[in-house]
Amino acid sequence: MSTKINNFENGQKIEVPLLVHSVTKGVTQNGAPYLSIRFQDNTGTIEGKWWDVDPKMEEVIKPGTVGMVKCDVLLYRQNLQIRVHGFTKLDHYDLDEFVNASEYSNEFLKEQMSIYIGMIKNPIYSTIVEACFEHYGEDFYRYPAATRNHHDFVGGLATHVYGMCRMAVSLKEIYDEIDLDLLLAGILLHDMGKIDEYTQPMLSQYSTQGRLLGHISIMHGHLYEIIHRLGLVDTEESMLLRHLILSHHGLLEYGSPVRPMVKEAEILNFLDNLDARMNMFEKLLEDTEEGTFSPREFALENRAFYKPKGVK
Amino acid sequence: MSTKINNFENGQKIEVPLLVHSVTKGVTQNGAPYLSIRFQDNTGTIEGKWWDVDPKMEEVIKPGTVGMVKCDVLLYRQNLQIRVHGFTKLDHYDLDEFVNASEYSNEFLKEQMSIYIGMIKNPIYSTIVEACFEHYGEDFYRYPAATRNHHDFVGGLATHVYGMCRMAVSLKEIYDEIDLDLLLAGILLHDMGKIDEYTQPMLSQYSTQGRLLGHISIMHGHLYEIIHRLGLVDTEESMLLRHLILSHHGLLEYGSPVRPMVKEAEILNFLDNLDARMNMFEKLLEDTEEGTFSPREFALENRAFYKPKGVK
Amino acid sequence: MSTKINNFENGQKIEVPLLVHSVTKGVTQNGAPYLSIRFQDNTGTIEGKWWDVDPKMEEVIKPGTVGMVKCDVLLYRQNLQIRVHGFTKLDHYDLDEFVNASEYSNEFLKEQMSIYIGMIKNPIYSTIVEACFEHYGEDFYRYPAATRNHHDFVGGLATHVYGMCRMAVSLKEIYDEIDLDLLLAGILLHDMGKIDEYTQPMLSQYSTQGRLLGHISIMHGHLYEIIHRLGLVDTEESMLLRHLILSHHGLLEYGSPVRPMVKEAEILNFLDNLDARMNMFEKLLEDTEEGTFSPREFALENRAFYKPKGVK
Amino acid sequence: MSTKINNFENGQKIEVPLLVHSVTKGVTQNGAPYLSIRFQDNTGTIEGKWWDVDPKMEEVIKPGTVGMVKCDVLLYRQNLQIRVHGFTKLDHYDLDEFVNASEYSNEFLKEQMSIYIGMIKNPIYSTIVEACFEHYGEDFYRYPAATRNHHDFVGGLATHVYGMCRMAVSLKEIYDEIDLDLLLAGILLHDMGKIDEYTQPMLSQYSTQGRLLGHISIMHGHLYEIIHRLGLVDTEESMLLRHLILSHHGLLEYGSPVRPMVKEAEILNFLDNLDARMNMFEKLLEDTEEGTFSPREFALENRAFYKPKGVK
Amino acid sequence: MSTKINNFENGQKIEVPLLVHSVTKGVTQNGAPYLSIRFQDNTGTIEGKWWDVDPKMEEVIKPGTVGMVKCDVLLYRQNLQIRVHGFTKLDHYDLDEFVNASEYSNEFLKEQMSIYIGMIKNPIYSTIVEACFEHYGEDFYRYPAATRNHHDFVGGLATHVYGMCRMAVSLKEIYDEIDLDLLLAGILLHDMGKIDEYTQPMLSQYSTQGRLLGHISIMHGHLYEIIHRLGLVDTEESMLLRHLILSHHGLLEYGSPVRPMVKEAEILNFLDNLDARMNMFEKLLEDTEEGTFSPREFALENRAFYKPKGVK
Amino acid sequence: MSTKINNFENGQKIEVPLLVHSVTKGVTQNGAPYLSIRFQDNTGTIEGKWWDVDPKMEEVIKPGTVGMVKCDVLLYRQNLQIRVHGFTKLDHYDLDEFVNASEYSNEFLKEQMSIYIGMIKNPIYSTIVEACFEHYGEDFYRYPAATRNHHDFVGGLATHVYGMCRMAVSLKEIYDEIDLDLLLAGILLHDMGKIDEYTQPMLSQYSTQGRLLGHISIMHGHLYEIIHRLGLVDTEESMLLRHLILSHHGLLEYGSPVRPMVKEAEILNFLDNLDARMNMFEKLLEDTEEGTFSPREFALENRAFYKPKGVK
Repeated sequence: MSTKINNFENGQKIEVPLLVHSVTKGVTQNGAPYLSIRFQDNTGTIEGKWWDVDPKMEEVIKPGTVGMVKCDVLLYRQNLQIRVHGFTKLDHYDLDEFVNASEYSNEFLKEQMSIYIGMIKNPIYSTIVEACFEHYGEDFYRYPAATRNHHDFVGGLATHVYGMCRMAVSLKEIYDEIDLDLLLAGILLHDMGKIDEYTQPMLSQYSTQGRLLGHISIMHGHLYEIIHRLGLVDTEESMLLRHLILSHHGLLEYGSPVRPMVKEAEILNFLDNLDARMNMFEKLLEDTEEGTFSPREFALENRAFYKPKGVK
Repeated sequence: MSTKINNFENGQKIEVPLLVHSVTKGVTQNGAPYLSIRFQDNTGTIEGKWWDVDPKMEEVIKPGTVGMVKCDVLLYRQNLQIRVHGFTKLDHYDLDEFVNASEYSNEFLKEQMSIYIGMIKNPIYSTIVEACFEHYGEDFYRYPAATRNHHDFVGGLATHVYGMCRMAVSLKEIYDEIDLDLLLAGILLHDMGKIDEYTQPMLSQYSTQGRLLGHISIMHGHLYEIIHRLGLVDTEESMLLRHLILSHHGLLEYGSPVRPMVKEAEILNFLDNLDARMNMFEKLLEDTEEGTFSPREFALENRAFYKPKGVK
Repeated sequence: MSTKINNFENGQKIEVPLLVHSVTKGVTQNGAPYLSIRFQDNTGTIEGKWWDVDPKMEEVIKPGTVGMVKCDVLLYRQNLQIRVHGFTKLDHYDLDEFVNASEYSNEFLKEQMSIYIGMIKNPIYSTIVEACFEHYGEDFYRYPAATRNHHDFVGGLATHVYGMCRMAVSLKEIYDEIDLDLLLAGILLHDMGKIDEYTQPMLSQYSTQGRLLGHISIMHGHLYEIIHRLGLVDTEESMLLRHLILSHHGLLEYGSPVRPMVKEAEILNFLDNLDARMNMFEKLLEDTEEGTFSPREFALENRAFYKPKGVK
Repeated sequence: MSTKINNFENGQKIEVPLLVHSVTKGVTQNGAPYLSIRFQDNTGTIEGKWWDVDPKMEEVIKPGTVGMVKCDVLLYRQNLQIRVHGFTKLDHYDLDEFVNASEYSNEFLKEQMSIYIGMIKNPIYSTIVEACFEHYGEDFYRYPAATRNHHDFVGGLATHVYGMCRMAVSLKEIYDEIDLDLLLAGILLHDMGKIDEYTQPMLSQYSTQGRLLGHISIMHGHLYEIIHRLGLVDTEESMLLRHLILSHHGLLEYGSPVRPMVKEAEILNFLDNLDARMNMFEKLLEDTEEGTFSPREFALENRAFYKPKGVK
Repeated sequence: MSTKINNFENGQKIEVPLLVHSVTKGVTQNGAPYLSIRFQDNTGTIEGKWWDVDPKMEEVIKPGTVGMVKCDVLLYRQNLQIRVHGFTKLDHYDLDEFVNASEYSNEFLKEQMSIYIGMIKNPIYSTIVEACFEHYGEDFYRYPAATRNHHDFVGGLATHVYGMCRMAVSLKEIYDEIDLDLLLAGILLHDMGKIDEYTQPMLSQYSTQGRLLGHISIMHGHLYEIIHRLGLVDTEESMLLRHLILSHHGLLEYGSPVRPMVKEAEILNFLDNLDARMNMFEKLLEDTEEGTFSPREFALENRAFYKPKGVK
Repeated sequence: MSTKINNFENGQKIEVPLLVHSVTKGVTQNGAPYLSIRFQDNTGTIEGKWWDVDPKMEEVIKPGTVGMVKCDVLLYRQNLQIRVHGFTKLDHYDLDEFVNASEYSNEFLKEQMSIYIGMIKNPIYSTIVEACFEHYGEDFYRYPAATRNHHDFVGGLATHVYGMCRMAVSLKEIYDEIDLDLLLAGILLHDMGKIDEYTQPMLSQYSTQGRLLGHISIMHGHLYEIIHRLGLVDTEESMLLRHLILSHHGLLEYGSPVRPMVKEAEILNFLDNLDARMNMFEKLLEDTEEGTFSPREFALENRAFYKPKGVK
């Protein structure tokens, strides 16, 4: 097995397979062309420079390409960087080596989703949920839950939904008045629109419709079309489920066209938030030393978080 | 023709046909039952009291009922009020005598809508717009554009759309880069969801789905279902039109899940706002004396407006 | 057993024991004195009027007094009200008949607190927590968690803490990286300062120091004094626990002098919020008919909540 | 005719007349002096560097100077840039070749202003408007309407006012209750204070009084002084016109000391906003490819705008 | 000397001279006319009712009229009120008996203003200040500084300016870098526009121009006209002084079209605020018992203030 | 005496004692190590680069170290910079040569604090204040009042408190109702918590407890512990003083857990603000030329301030 990015050391001369994350062309003050390339594997990313690059390489080095990279590792402004000398595109590789993925396997997540869908006793909710899962198919298990910030890895969407379902079941034990069927249905569908909002499962960006419509309205559109097709437009259940999808961001300022006005809608918003934050804390504190503060994190209201020292 | 509310005078004893706007039951300090009834005709509304009312009348006097009212007019706290002594339900009457209606006739508005729909040259937009008009049918010409504030009368929705269409055509003459097809399609459809958001064309309230979903998402759902049925989901036009509907309130805080990000979406929001305000000014200043300020109007950011004196 | 307020009927003439919640003096337009008295029992409250009252009764009828009330029940502006004719102070009564109390018994709550304190393995946290419980003693089980809104009943504070502890333990099972010791210590102490912030366990008001200092700073003062006395000022644990108390309102605007900057502080704020909301939903929807909206609730950002009809 | 900036190509060695937009001095790490100069012609701007420049050139190369520039064009960080080798000041040139100007000629704009001033029938308004036009004279046709963002070119102020006048006349046809005299007078004068707020008609900056007083108060001061001189202080018209000038930014936060409280003041604010936005859209989308989003634009609330593809 | 309002007692039958503060007409449920009149003397105000009043009295009882009032004092809803039986207009009276006035005499205030004007050494500032004082003459010593909230009494404006001048001089001793000439000139003129903003010195309301233009712009207009007449438009001093007037509310949201951008402008805003607050505290705490909180005061950001008990 | 930073000239080769303010390591594109060092003396700071530095120097050159620096002065991007060639650590030096210090001597400040403490007549306040001064001892005269912005120099805290005390005494002469004892006690203690909030008296940073608790709560904790120890918990005075400390930032958003609700608390907040601003103006305008604007200053709400020209 080849060296991984998180093991690179200053001074190494190596040849390793890496995924191109993004690339920009430049010209030095002397007029020589170069490429700034961000490479990635499943342990992290690293910045690379290819000075005096053959212009033809621009056609080869594109986001999403995997290639064997010949390079020197060096320290630049206190960060490791690589000087690239060669790049040979690879056609066969194991994607898992290059992208982050859920800690849970695809099979496990599918199994869990089946279990939670199976817990929904109300047939209207379960019919609708199943039709939505059918509509999105495999993509539900491949897309991330966000392009950055939280659950931004292959399988992130399903992982996020799984965490929320677990909390929902726990909560039902403490607060019996919760309608678990409605809450689970809402959790399972709430972020499905992200599959259309993003361009692809990995290295994903916002699609044009994603920016112009947003995942909340995209999903609500699909959901209404499905409900209409199933002849369920006039049921109380379909109205409640639509409300949960529309209101799950909690505030108008966050893109929900209506605020939660049903108890389970409020809880859905809380669980969404809490699971996302738990994932962000994990990422943020992983790279923070004990007894120090993490960098400020925009998605956590620009706060820095302190990692306690040796308390436990 | 009988006396109208705006002609009632202190001291009159009259018998007039009136529409019940709303009604509340009460009991005097002495334990006697009474009804507080707000009556309406097409010149205004007036508060009425029916002291020592026969409890059976509660079954008769309901919002929306028209009846012959026997009463005395008197001044109470500086406002005219009526003491009701009798009420006989009427089965035949001319609704126009009791509710406000657009200054334009139903025929005129239909004709105008046809003209503006006919101006749309792009077949995708015109197909979609026609399907939406078919879906809502006559209701488009009967519903108000708001439950209060602006265009809150029978035909208000179509009247509001008509004003906006006229401005759109004028604007196109000044700013040629406007895509008039997209703008007209957006104007024609933008508030159609209000037909489901409100309970009925007159004396309308918010329906349950109106409160839980909002007219923007209701309309976007219908629109997507229609686009899907017509096989137009993947067209640029359908995406743009959906964006115009979703963004027409301009700000997330005002219930649009996305902000306008297409030129015509921004213009739609401006025209919507301007036409609504022109209608509010008209209502507000009608009852204000020259040289004085109107009452504060919540929907105009709580401002009072000054009515200039004899300038023109 | 005597009739309770929630069973009063229009027209009844009754004699029942009631608690005086609050009282105001008035004079009729004819110059006659009267008292407006809000009475309470453990099923609700009702407004009463005592016309032409003997001025001496003012000395007797004071908030917190329980008395046998002779009165007529009548309907006034669509609400039941009572006309009081007599009031005899009672010296012996069972307080539980007049005030709301937790659904959990005092014993049960004490037992549960012992269990959760016992779960804290870190001796610094448990020493501090025990010293705080000793400081406040019985009051912890008697005070409400808020003067209105949520858990506003005898034992409300302990009930609120109990709900949060249960969630904390569930969450730890899902998110293993949580420091349960710190989180439980924070939950157990976070609202203790309310015992000084309010004047008394029932019918409680804000005390002067409650208004000028606030329960967060009151508790932080006590906590620091205890930590200082125990010689624990320089421990990481005492600093973290102080941070959790100070930051538990989440935002500066809500009275926390610092925002949560430790993972468990963020979770504490979420659990506090969620448990309070679950209790508010319960109160709010209890009196709402299925298929309708509750009144707007200020503490829930002025939203009205919809109670679904017969879904489940 | 010489090459223009928008036709420069990587690798060219050219000699072209250019206007100096701004200039900064620097010293390389080796201690050699250089100049960073932004040049401009009527097709755009370009960054230039003059390495090892003769220090005397600093006296020659000043913002506003036009000179013949000897240089090489090269690509630097994906943008074209020039290396300057020589600069000869030109004394005679056609300013129009170097600065952007209105699409309308000076004569046309003067003619149009005359027409709109002529439409004002009320003699008080027309007397005041004429006195203001006399006060500012030619400058009204030379200044921009903003230093950047919208109508930031020679003649921009008059062009902006022209667009607004056209809309006002259209609007009057749709909404007859508008007082066109007041509205036109307000439009014609609203931004005149910018002539004092900016330092000069081209490459303009905020003047000291512009920053300390703002164009709204500067214009209101002039207007009041003129009204006072004309003996019109106590007329309704002068008060209304002063109100329109003061309130035309719509919100206190945007620098209006009072909010619009007269119908025409509200409309003025709308038309100002709409015409400015139409001009910003034009500039922003001109450089955006179909099917993509423009860069974010601060003056449009930091939104990026989408340019639809081939719809029309 | 006759009884004053603050000495009225329940049950009294009296005849006293009172000033009419405001008046409203009404009709009882039985159709009888009555007047609700708020009366005032220099110790407070009291509500009065004149039942079955002769309609002719409407012509006599107007705000600002002083009359001999025949009435009974009674307690209504815990407040004293009077039943009026007669009113005889008085033509001769001492205004000071009916309105609140500054604790300082007119002479004293004039003397003090002379002293502070005399302290200004820079002739440009002193010339301008003197011209403004000449423009407003006696009114400067008669108007209040606000219609309610602070310094809302005859002479309030001059009293407020006096307090600020005293602080300015003290501050100059501590912070020598202050330009006392500019600061004093700014203080002396900052609120003069209120003389036009209000309708009259006592019982004053906002005038129409006061609402449409605001005292800041009114004063800035006068000031510019005076500066223009004196030929001082191009002096640094006149620009600075205009800036101080325009920016003295500190924030755009509070009606200043520019924020303070000169040190003395910032100080002026502070002193204005501090002196106003000191006056509000005095009024607010005067009627508050020691050891209790005052009512909430809107102008103090809706806070209630605590009056400490016997500390000193 | 050696050359000071504010006298350095382009082209000098010098050897001077300097204090290391901060330091960062780097590697050139050629892989050579270098240090970026910010040096400081009591006249300012300057950026330095040490190319090809011996890695061992990293151990020597640390923030807070004073050394003899051998270097060349040069101009880089319009700022002076130094190229370092040697650094010899100094063990003996006069700290005053390297850090900014109060314009007042340590002795003077101690004397002044004694005077103001002595002015407090109420024995409860003076006992508490003395105990707090004893707790912090010398540090009170060494710490700054802020890490940047205002009074960010040795002795800054005492200097800030001194300015505020002077104003308090002046104010008492104008507004006699002020409780000077409470106000002085509040001023003397309000910022003492900064001694724990910062890491050290010079080049100070926020400590971990400073970030997690904040100086307001740190000081309130100490104060309560002292009050508790002195047996003064139940006095009105201790409650008021705690309130002044807690509320001195004025707004919840600024970190005060309660808003000022006692007159003296409001004044404390004003004086704190005013003295801080006077110090910021001094720093900001010192480096600004007459007739120009300073840079924007974040701590002054991002405003730029104008420095008037030769007015006085």
